[in-house]
Amino acid sequence: MASREIEALANALARLPGLGPRSARRAVLHLMKKRENALQPLLAALQTVSEKLSTCSTCGNVDTSDPCSICADPRRDETMLCVVEEVSDLWALDRSRLFPGRYHVLGGRLSALEGVRPEDLTIDRLVARVSNGGTDEVVLAMNATLEGQTTAHYVAERLEKFPVRLSQLAHGLPVGGELDYLDEGTLAQALRARRPVA
Amino acid sequence: MASREIEALANALARLPGLGPRSARRAVLHLMKKRENALQPLLAALQTVSEKLSTCSTCGNVDTSDPCSICADPRRDETMLCVVEEVSDLWALDRSRLFPGRYHVLGGRLSALEGVRPEDLTIDRLVARVSNGGTDEVVLAMNATLEGQTTAHYVAERLEKFPVRLSQLAHGLPVGGELDYLDEGTLAQALRARRPVA
Ligand SMILES: [Zn+2]
Ligand SMILES: [Zn+2]
Repeated sequence: MASREIEALANALARLPGLGPRSARRAVLHLMKKRENALQPLLAALQTVSEKLSTCSTCGNVDTSDPCSICADPRRDETMLCVVEEVSDLWALDRSRLFPGRYHVLGGRLSALEGVRPEDLTIDRLVARVSNGGTDEVVLAMNATLEGQTTAHYVAERLEKFPVRLSQLAHGLPVGGELDYLDEGTLAQALRARRPVA
Repeated sequence: MASREIEALANALARLPGLGPRSARRAVLHLMKKRENALQPLLAALQTVSEKLSTCSTCGNVDTSDPCSICADPRRDETMLCVVEEVSDLWALDRSRLFPGRYHVLGGRLSALEGVRPEDLTIDRLVARVSNGGTDEVVLAMNATLEGQTTAHYVAERLEKFPVRLSQLAHGLPVGGELDYLDEGTLAQALRARRPVA
């Protein structure tokens, strides 16, 4: 129907989550019709992000700077650290603007099934951050899945020798629920009612 | 939550049809996670399309070359011309691979309400194409809306003095239906059962 170049663009868009082949074609048409108002801004934004993209060497967030905008923000409470599995969880939590502290991205969850061991996650780096001092509270914000909770217990054990309060998101997360899919209301409630790790 | 650059990318994606703010954020994360396999191919495809994008001076299709790949394809039957309102309709029809001829994109539909007059569409160019000879059949493939059908009648009147068969898509299109949203089966049926304009 169209040139190989346009097919390539449709295919690249179709691989994005949330866009199937049909909506990708509609998106391509939209981009081609709105060259100045849609194609150019998207191209420019992608170019910038592509050039500057980096993983924060402090917290593991992905951003266009290192340290990331959260770690570099002086208004963020340095004494509070929220530990999440994935960058998407960090984003989901931070969207609710309820957590005033900083984050630590583990890069996954412990999983016997998938062979993910502690050394595959950034747990050592988290322990180092906490052992450096300055942290009063660590919020364990893992998914309410078996593997998420196993990871939370393991992290809690690794941190219990430090003088920090350990808390975790209130139960209230639906069983099997993944942070990234929850509405902000549920996240807000879970965060507000967080409780100390027993 | 993230840098302005990442917000800009999320906003540009959120404006695509089919992607809301939430799925745009997921798409951004996906792009950032799969830098080599998602971000780079999308960026490259957008760049190429952005550089080469042009409107076919023959048929009005948008493509990365002028003439477009359809007009340049020698296997396409030059004696058949399918007239559509928009480029999206051309794509929708051509996806079904049932029409072996070429196209003419009007660039819209006549509309008293929106003040779209014949001279706002590429009707003169269509008349010129047909008057040049070589066309045996013109298929009027406007939407089954009031304005689409008004446009079809007007175009039919402008072409009736030429020795060409005029046909239109079989009724069977749902009333108010827009070509671009129909499944290929319906399109195929409507095209196969096309009938001469009375
Ligand atoms: Zn950071
Ligand atoms: Zn063309």
